[in-house]
Amino acid sequence: MKKYQVVGIGNAMVDVLARAEDAFLAEAGVEKGIMQLIDMDRAVDLYGRVGPAQEVSGGSAANTIAGIAHLGGRTAYVGKVKDDQLGAIFAHDLRAQGADYATRMAPKTEEAETGRCIVIVTPDGERSMNTYLGVTEFLSPDDIDPAQMADAEWIYLEGYRFDGPDSHAAFAKAIAACKGAGGRVSITLSDPFCIERHRDAFRDMIRDHVDLLFCNRAEMLSMYQTDDFDAALAQAAAHVGIIACTDSADGVHVLSDGQRWHVPAVPTQIVDATGAGDLFAGAFLWGLTNGYDLETCGKMGNLAASEVISHIGARPQADLMAMFRDQGLV
Amino acid sequence: MKKYQVVGIGNAMVDVLARAEDAFLAEAGVEKGIMQLIDMDRAVDLYGRVGPAQEVSGGSAANTIAGIAHLGGRTAYVGKVKDDQLGAIFAHDLRAQGADYATRMAPKTEEAETGRCIVIVTPDGERSMNTYLGVTEFLSPDDIDPAQMADAEWIYLEGYRFDGPDSHAAFAKAIAACKGAGGRVSITLSDPFCIERHRDAFRDMIRDHVDLLFCNRAEMLSMYQTDDFDAALAQAAAHVGIIACTDSADGVHVLSDGQRWHVPAVPTQIVDATGAGDLFAGAFLWGLTNGYDLETCGKMGNLAASEVISHIGARPQADLMAMFRDQGLV
Repeated sequence: MKKYQVVGIGNAMVDVLARAEDAFLAEAGVEKGIMQLIDMDRAVDLYGRVGPAQEVSGGSAANTIAGIAHLGGRTAYVGKVKDDQLGAIFAHDLRAQGADYATRMAPKTEEAETGRCIVIVTPDGERSMNTYLGVTEFLSPDDIDPAQMADAEWIYLEGYRFDGPDSHAAFAKAIAACKGAGGRVSITLSDPFCIERHRDAFRDMIRDHVDLLFCNRAEMLSMYQTDDFDAALAQAAAHVGIIACTDSADGVHVLSDGQRWHVPAVPTQIVDATGAGDLFAGAFLWGLTNGYDLETCGKMGNLAASEVISHIGARPQADLMAMFRDQGLV
Repeated sequence: MKKYQVVGIGNAMVDVLARAEDAFLAEAGVEKGIMQLIDMDRAVDLYGRVGPAQEVSGGSAANTIAGIAHLGGRTAYVGKVKDDQLGAIFAHDLRAQGADYATRMAPKTEEAETGRCIVIVTPDGERSMNTYLGVTEFLSPDDIDPAQMADAEWIYLEGYRFDGPDSHAAFAKAIAACKGAGGRVSITLSDPFCIERHRDAFRDMIRDHVDLLFCNRAEMLSMYQTDDFDAALAQAAAHVGIIACTDSADGVHVLSDGQRWHVPAVPTQIVDATGAGDLFAGAFLWGLTNGYDLETCGKMGNLAASEVISHIGARPQADLMAMFRDQGLV
């Protein structure tokens, strides 16, 4: 048995969650519902304009790994923080959830700080993300331990990390080590604008290496530059063994081996949409690596997503396993 | 008109909120429901043992001032943080709420860090607080601006700050400046064990300077070393113009000028009791400085307390003024 069911690699972030009306987004020049990269000056300016906030550990793949750990899965995370207070918070929360986390911290002398994402949550629960990458930008092949990747049934790569040139090489190193030891590769496309920035790199990776693709409808359409959702799914399915493509309130489409399932979403009052896709992936991967069929994995993913959007913060607060039990999934 | 309705002085803190079962408290040596002072080693040890947490600005008097600012009151806060990430979070959240906050930060070179309180919330909503004071311990007379105190209708002193010798002198300086300009002095007793540590100093201050005393039943009994609640209230009333003594689910007793009112609590599902007394005081002071009668101030206090215990974190999330309006208080 491999030590890890899933090892995730991504942007290590602390989320700074603030509520605001829609009018604020326009005034502050924040695009609604997507992730925008910002520099430290903009981060300071924007932080100065938002109301009182709360800080919770985030990072897309880190949320996924926290979800797997929460469910009792054997899991680890790779992503870079600095040896500062926010870095300590990030590391604590992941380890306290039960995930292994040993990425070398950037030293105190480093000028950049631990990455943070100013998440502005509007009354409809939609989140508009403003990401200062900080030291997480510097994730490089040196941060990848091939032995750890070889000891993973699956690795899980965060698309956002395509924004760092050194991280392409880090991903390549992780993939080689994992696949060389019989492991498999999953990826999340993360964001339509991130795909715009790196479409060719994403396509190459999907074609050559990816066994399981997580994305949402907008990302799938952006990936294949089409308005025809089914055509895009078919293109992806030609290269990838399993596809799980979420479609907001419509649930998820799962494709594999010429089969296709549609699993409806779990109706929920949306308080904060942050982490919906991340927790979907976490629960899906937990199900998959515990031998559940793909439709059940989709149900688990939807249920986990419904929990995380029902409260502020992108990591589970309720007992997901109890929810799975209540629904007869486990 | 004075610039400020209320200027608060207290321990500047970021709360680290973690949920745990009661059994954890025993294992970790945490006394339930009270505030315990801990050093940095214990803070690191305890933090390593609690589950994933969330960080929100706290500090007893700071919560009170945040409540007054939230209600649109003219208010300021004095309390010390370091020039570090948690210090920046504390300062941001207070200013973003609309309070003035200009206390000189301890420099980056200072070894101690911004104070934090590891708050362990058990399933009954009770909070057990473990406070690493950090630089907030160093609040001294140099941090008190007499002009600011003279420009306050009321100052509000946090009893917890009696734990710092220099802060007694800081309080004395603030009181002299405030009273010298015709202002008045309110204080919260904060905690029964804090009273144990400094009973004489509290008594002297209550006798000589305090115009409005906030406390709860346990603190009142500890203050006058008796089990007879009414006798304790009578003793306090001999020295203090207004007393607001909360009694958990039983609401609050308000005494002034030989009169006494009992205002029942607002029934609420307790999620996290942190900040109940702080927000009671904030809403009460807002009412008082806006000319409302004492019974109405008590109702405002109870309503604000009910809001803050209905969610994680010690600062208001719902619109308190709308709640006052719904109840016909404003």
